[in-house]
Amino acid sequence: MRDFSETNITQAVLERAAGAADGRTREVSEALVRHLHNFIREIEPTQAEWEWGIDFLTRTGQMCSDTRQEFILLSDTLGVSMLVDAINHRLPGGATETTVLGPFYVGNPPVRALGSDISDGEEGEPLWAEGTIYDADGNPLVGATVDTWHSDADGYYDVQKPEDDELHMRARFITDENGRYWFRSIVPAYYPIPNDGPVGKMLQSQGRHPYRPAHVHFMIAAPNHETLVTHVFLEGDPYLDSDVVFGVKNSLITALTALENEHGIEKGKRLTYDFKLATAR
Amino acid sequence: MRDFSETNITQAVLERAAGAADGRTREVSEALVRHLHNFIREIEPTQAEWEWGIDFLTRTGQMCSDTRQEFILLSDTLGVSMLVDAINHRLPGGATETTVLGPFYVGNPPVRALGSDISDGEEGEPLWAEGTIYDADGNPLVGATVDTWHSDADGYYDVQKPEDDELHMRARFITDENGRYWFRSIVPAYYPIPNDGPVGKMLQSQGRHPYRPAHVHFMIAAPNHETLVTHVFLEGDPYLDSDVVFGVKNSLITALTALENEHGIEKGKRLTYDFKLATAR
Repeated sequence: MRDFSETNITQAVLERAAGAADGRTREVSEALVRHLHNFIREIEPTQAEWEWGIDFLTRTGQMCSDTRQEFILLSDTLGVSMLVDAINHRLPGGATETTVLGPFYVGNPPVRALGSDISDGEEGEPLWAEGTIYDADGNPLVGATVDTWHSDADGYYDVQKPEDDELHMRARFITDENGRYWFRSIVPAYYPIPNDGPVGKMLQSQGRHPYRPAHVHFMIAAPNHETLVTHVFLEGDPYLDSDVVFGVKNSLITALTALENEHGIEKGKRLTYDFKLATAR
Repeated sequence: MRDFSETNITQAVLERAAGAADGRTREVSEALVRHLHNFIREIEPTQAEWEWGIDFLTRTGQMCSDTRQEFILLSDTLGVSMLVDAINHRLPGGATETTVLGPFYVGNPPVRALGSDISDGEEGEPLWAEGTIYDADGNPLVGATVDTWHSDADGYYDVQKPEDDELHMRARFITDENGRYWFRSIVPAYYPIPNDGPVGKMLQSQGRHPYRPAHVHFMIAAPNHETLVTHVFLEGDPYLDSDVVFGVKNSLITALTALENEHGIEKGKRLTYDFKLATAR
């Protein structure tokens, strides 16, 4: 086949991709071609705009490194990550709601003893976090894996500080015989997502701020249960209603309470949050 | 706004991007979000498939270098480049048809005297190329800039050979007082687009070959005329009907003729092709 024009090019590409041996590859390829061509037909880019798009994607890929994932930031800020999250968590009511993983998770963090201070002396207001992991019927989940990670008081994650290659404000805990977890850290701050790259420029051109409200990440796993990836947000944060990655859910917001002369903390805040895991599908 | 779900996330992102100061940025951002979300809603990717997509885009960006543009290859093989080309060249009938630029153009190639041998001694069957550049009314265009570039007899472009940083089979000519160009080179071969990267893997998984039929690129410019970006394809090539980038048009195919003891060539081929440029819009 030759002589492709605006009228027949999409069909021609679809026919070519129809030869994929794997059914899912064929399905995804065909959908990609249709939606991508529809986008192009709608915006009718000039050659210069097409070149800009090629360059934007190239710069986004080249911004990625071991500690920076610019395409995840792009997916997050275009609402794609939350849409994918929603599609994959059509869970029965009652389970804790999910939100995005974000770009700062480090796989298999070090296991720390319950009650450890994971801030390792970083400056900030002391935080005591505690709660229980339940199954769908409200029974405590003993020996569940609780990964947690969060920013420091200035809004930076450990992996964003190249001068220090140790992990801080990041650990794995194993729930006790009552399904409980508890640890010490510092109160995290709201922060801008890394905005010195193509995604930061995109947000600026769209008239958007780059901030996420303060939160503590959790990834909780237990045998025969759906792994829960979520955050706990802090009540009162100025960015709860305009999170740049659309991650906030009301059920995930909690108010910190005051804490005095407890757990070796003179004056600080307490975060209490219980999680309920859905049974594995 | 909070509590984004499958139902309301797209509208939420659209409202956020509506703050773009520049009208075109707003238009393109909104279209991107709608079509991208429609794609995601149709395929319902698992988390693992989403991660694969992020990784595919990252690898594609990281494959790009000064001499390799993997995102252009992706655009070409998904038919996007030819669609953009068609949208931008709704030209009046009579002008020479356009096709993709491709990833091997080098800006401002060296100007050579008419009749130069641009193969610079590379091995291959001798080729004599000649023709006339016309305006829309059929008048010859004197002093038009004719950039040409093509592969060698093995299907490689000069820029694909890192061991040799000189430019070969690539030059700029200026048409003479009759609007004519002529030069010597070698007959190009069909070739696979660079397929050792993510795009090559994609083609393989889609059951597609990576070949382009043999062709000579031209980019022709003259004051007050639309710059023409096109190829001349060689009749009889086995890939004319399945060009991996969908670039072939019947009007751009020509048959080489035999040439003997002419222009210092003992035995070779002659390519004759005239071009007609559209008046600037």
